[in-house]
Amino acid sequence: MPRVTDDHLTARRRQILDGARRCFAEYGYEKATVRRLEHTIGLSRGAIFHHFRDKDTLFFELAREDAERMAEVASREGLIQVMRELIAAPDQFDWLATRLEIARKLRNDPAFHAGWAERSAELSAATSERLRRQKKAGRLRDDVPGSVLQNYLDLVLDGLVARLASGDTTENLSAVLDLVEESVRQRG
Amino acid sequence: MPRVTDDHLTARRRQILDGARRCFAEYGYEKATVRRLEHTIGLSRGAIFHHFRDKDTLFFELAREDAERMAEVASREGLIQVMRELIAAPDQFDWLATRLEIARKLRNDPAFHAGWAERSAELSAATSERLRRQKKAGRLRDDVPGSVLQNYLDLVLDGLVARLASGDTTENLSAVLDLVEESVRQRG
Repeated sequence: MPRVTDDHLTARRRQILDGARRCFAEYGYEKATVRRLEHTIGLSRGAIFHHFRDKDTLFFELAREDAERMAEVASREGLIQVMRELIAAPDQFDWLATRLEIARKLRNDPAFHAGWAERSAELSAATSERLRRQKKAGRLRDDVPGSVLQNYLDLVLDGLVARLASGDTTENLSAVLDLVEESVRQRG
Repeated sequence: MPRVTDDHLTARRRQILDGARRCFAEYGYEKATVRRLEHTIGLSRGAIFHHFRDKDTLFFELAREDAERMAEVASREGLIQVMRELIAAPDQFDWLATRLEIARKLRNDPAFHAGWAERSAELSAATSERLRRQKKAGRLRDDVPGSVLQNYLDLVLDGLVARLASGDTTENLSAVLDLVEESVRQRG
């Protein structure tokens, strides 16, 4: 048997994740069946699930990649910059819709909720760390607890995702984010 | 044939709408099949679709009822009060999840988007009218256009629905709404 190199493994995992992301974006979480995943990825279910245990594991890994990317931006430039970048990436809106489709499942399936939360933790941690630094530097308002500011920004992010995924106009959204930014700032 | 009275018609429509709301709340928009609607409502498809043309017509009528109720509150006390009442009504969270599940359909199905928007127009109109009155009374900040304030509040509402429907903690949400309220107010 040929030796499977690390490069080959990495490339194969990448192929699976990229195909799965396209498949979820096109069909939504529920309708991205194993058959459709096979077709979009171009591999058999045996090959796919050799690398990722099941559909949810695949989905969570995509969420983790998102959270990692967003956390980098959030850590450097804050969660509002993450939102500005979302507005500027309409090719991602179909994928974003999957975040909304799983709400019922998140609420009713504790194992799914735990898996999802674990993968999103990195973004929360980055946001909260950045808020702490901003507060220390006197750039953040100090009349409202940091946890409230974080929940506020998380809620605005959810709202933004809902707007973008629903195809509502993105008109004004940049001005809305200016308002949000100003509302967490220390008054000059 | 017995004469069908208005009372009877109204009661029958009510039975259908209440049953349909429970069915959508339990199964979600996609999985609320005609068979399940028949079962939850307790009437045959013939009887149901005699009153409402199809599943989407039923769904839009429920959305219109929501918008009407919310518009009453928004007109009297503002959209933030609408949100405070949402937080206080956890029995509605399952139904709220349906608003998220249709995002992809809203984006990709123009007829569905138009039908939905038409039913939600009443709430937008009430919010915008209330914002105008508040501005005139000097209670609203005037350094930001009214349309931006309205889009901001709409986005926060979407975010709140996403949070509640996903079963995230409602901790802090009341304080978050205080912050939102303050951020649209005229500074004293």
